[in-house]
Amino acid sequence: MSPSGLRTTGGGRVNRAYRLRRRPDGALADGDLELVTEEIPELGDGQALVRTRLLSLDPTNRIWMSDVRGYMPPVPIGAVMRGLGIGEIVESSRDDMPVGAMVSGFTGWQELVLADDAQLEAPLTVLPDPLPAPESAFLGALGHTGITAYIGIDLADLKEGETIVVSAACGAVGGVAGQVARERGARVVGIAGGPEKCAHAVEKLGYDACIDHRADDWADQLDAATPDGIDVDFENVGGPIMDHILMRVNLGARVSLCGMIADYNSYDHGEAHVKGQANIGQLIMMRATIKGFLVLDYADRFEEAITYLAGLLGEGRLHYDETIVEGGIEAAPEALGQLFSGQNMGKLLVRVSD
Amino acid sequence: MSPSGLRTTGGGRVNRAYRLRRRPDGALADGDLELVTEEIPELGDGQALVRTRLLSLDPTNRIWMSDVRGYMPPVPIGAVMRGLGIGEIVESSRDDMPVGAMVSGFTGWQELVLADDAQLEAPLTVLPDPLPAPESAFLGALGHTGITAYIGIDLADLKEGETIVVSAACGAVGGVAGQVARERGARVVGIAGGPEKCAHAVEKLGYDACIDHRADDWADQLDAATPDGIDVDFENVGGPIMDHILMRVNLGARVSLCGMIADYNSYDHGEAHVKGQANIGQLIMMRATIKGFLVLDYADRFEEAITYLAGLLGEGRLHYDETIVEGGIEAAPEALGQLFSGQNMGKLLVRVSD
Repeated sequence: MSPSGLRTTGGGRVNRAYRLRRRPDGALADGDLELVTEEIPELGDGQALVRTRLLSLDPTNRIWMSDVRGYMPPVPIGAVMRGLGIGEIVESSRDDMPVGAMVSGFTGWQELVLADDAQLEAPLTVLPDPLPAPESAFLGALGHTGITAYIGIDLADLKEGETIVVSAACGAVGGVAGQVARERGARVVGIAGGPEKCAHAVEKLGYDACIDHRADDWADQLDAATPDGIDVDFENVGGPIMDHILMRVNLGARVSLCGMIADYNSYDHGEAHVKGQANIGQLIMMRATIKGFLVLDYADRFEEAITYLAGLLGEGRLHYDETIVEGGIEAAPEALGQLFSGQNMGKLLVRVSD
Repeated sequence: MSPSGLRTTGGGRVNRAYRLRRRPDGALADGDLELVTEEIPELGDGQALVRTRLLSLDPTNRIWMSDVRGYMPPVPIGAVMRGLGIGEIVESSRDDMPVGAMVSGFTGWQELVLADDAQLEAPLTVLPDPLPAPESAFLGALGHTGITAYIGIDLADLKEGETIVVSAACGAVGGVAGQVARERGARVVGIAGGPEKCAHAVEKLGYDACIDHRADDWADQLDAATPDGIDVDFENVGGPIMDHILMRVNLGARVSLCGMIADYNSYDHGEAHVKGQANIGQLIMMRATIKGFLVLDYADRFEEAITYLAGLLGEGRLHYDETIVEGGIEAAPEALGQLFSGQNMGKLLVRVSD
C-alpha cells in the first residue's frame, strides 16, 4: 500500500475492476464478468483519481449487461461494468475536484476511477462538504432511488384517500415510495417477499398492509387489503403480480412503471424473453394509464426531491434501510443476486473501500 | 306482416332476438347465442317501438359476451345480446319519439326494441331529421367508431412530422384514425391483413405506407416503413405486432390503446388467457405511456368530433368503408367472425330491416 492507501505495483497504482466478458443468459453467472487488475497511469491535466467507497447495486445493472434496447447503451463487451457509486478524490490535477472531496456518479464496478470527463459516460458530481447525511444515503434515500420514488409518486398524481400498491415494498425505491405515498394520505399496500419484510414494511415504513408474495394465498390477501380497488400502482416488479394488480385497478388508475425486475434475468439476445403481461386490456376497461419513467429525465427536480426527502428525514418521518455487503469489489457479482432473490433489505451497496 | 311491416302472430308483434345462452370459449360458436321469437306486448305509457335497421358489429361485442372484467357488465346469460344499432320508430306513446323518427343506441341484437328508458341500458338517441349523411355513417365514421378515432388521436397529442402506426388500418376505427392522423401532418403507417387492404389503405385512405401483417417479413417491412421510429401507436389489435411496435417506439412515445382484438377470443372464464405483451418494459426504456381509453367517456366532445369529421367528409377528405351484411338479424353471429378473420372492410354492419 502507498501512503494514499492505494495498491501499488513497482510502477503505479493498481485498479481492480470488473469487465463484462459476455452478456448473461439468465441470472448473472461465473464468467460473465471478469475481475481484472490494471495499472492506472500517472494523472494528466484535467484528471483526478477517485477511490470508490460504496458501489450501488440496482436491478438496472442487469439491463445494462444485456443488449435489449435500453435507456442507455449496453455495456460494451470488454468494458468496465457500469455502476453508480460514491468515492473520494485521492489524487487530482483538477481544481474542481480537490483531494479529499467526495463524489458520486457512474464510478463503475471498480476500485479506482479515473475522473476524466472526456472518458467517463457522465461527469462525476462533487458532493457538499460536510455531508448533511451519511454518505450511503446519497446512493439511496437521498440519491437516485429516493428521487425515483418521489418522482414516481408525483407522476401518478396520488391523492389523499386513494389506494396505492407498491411492489418491492422494502426495496430501495419501494421503501421510500411507500412513505411518500403515506405522506400524501393514501392507503398504502406493499408487496414484499417473506413475513419479516412484510412486518418491517408495516412497522417501520408505515404501510397500511403488506402482502407476502411468497404466501400461497397472496392474491386473496391482496384483494382483501385493497377492498376499494387500486388507484395507483407503483410498479417495480412486473410479472403475475402486476397482472393481478391490473385486474383490480379502478377507473382512471395510474401505473407508474419504474421497473420490471421479474423480467430482467430474461433479457438476452436482444429480446425480452418473458411471459408477458396478460392483462394490458384492463387499461381499456378501466381507462387506465401506464407511464414508464426514469429518474434521469428529472434532473431539474432533483433539488426539489432531495429537499423534500431530507426534510422528511429530519422530521423522523423517513426510514431507510441499507444492506451493505462487505468484502470489497470482488463481492459485487454475487451480491447483485440478492436483488433477484429478494435477500437484501432496502438499498443494496457494496463497500469497496473504507 | 302488419301494415307497419312488423311480423305478427294472432295476438301481437313478433320480435326475433339473439339471447346469450353461454359464454364463448374461443371464437363465438353455435349454441352460444340462440335466436328466439318473442311477442311484444301492447305499448304502455313512455314506451315506443323501434324497428332495427342496421346493427353495428364491433370487436367489443366479444368482450361483452365474456365475463372478463369489462367496461360494462357482461351480458347476462339469457339476456338479449347487447349491440349498437340504428332504427326507426314504428309505434310510440312518447312525445319525444314520434313515429318515423330515426334513433341510435343500444338496440341489441334484435329486430324490435321496446324503447322504454327504464328497461334499456341507456336511452336511445333521436337523430336529426333530415339526416346530414347516410344513416349508416352514424354507426361508423360519424358515429362511435369515427369519434373513437378522433379522440384516440387527440389523446396521443400527435404532432406534425411524427410517425404514427395504426393497426387494423382499414377497420372502422383505424380507417378514420389514419385519416385524422394524416390531417395532422404525421407520417401514417398502417397495418392490415392482405395486399388488397394495404393497397386500399394507401390509395383511398391516404396512408403513407401499409404493412401486410400476413406477409412473412411484416416485421422487416414495418421497420423499413418507420425509419425514424414510432412516436404514436394507435393500437387496435395487441399481440406480437404490438410487441414489435413497442421495440420501435421513440422517447416519449404515446400508445392510444383502443382495442386488443387479438386477445378477445381468449377472454373466457373471468380471465384473459392470452400470451401477454412481452415488451412492456420498453415503456421504461423509452419513457413511453400507454393510455387506455373508451369513447363513452367523451360524450362532452361528441359534437366537436362529429363536426370535425363531417367537415372532412364534406370536403372530400374523409373516405369511409362499410361492409353491410344482408340476411337480417340471423346473419349477425356469423358476420361477427369477419372482424376476427379480417374479412370485412371498414365498418361492419348487419342490415336487419330495410
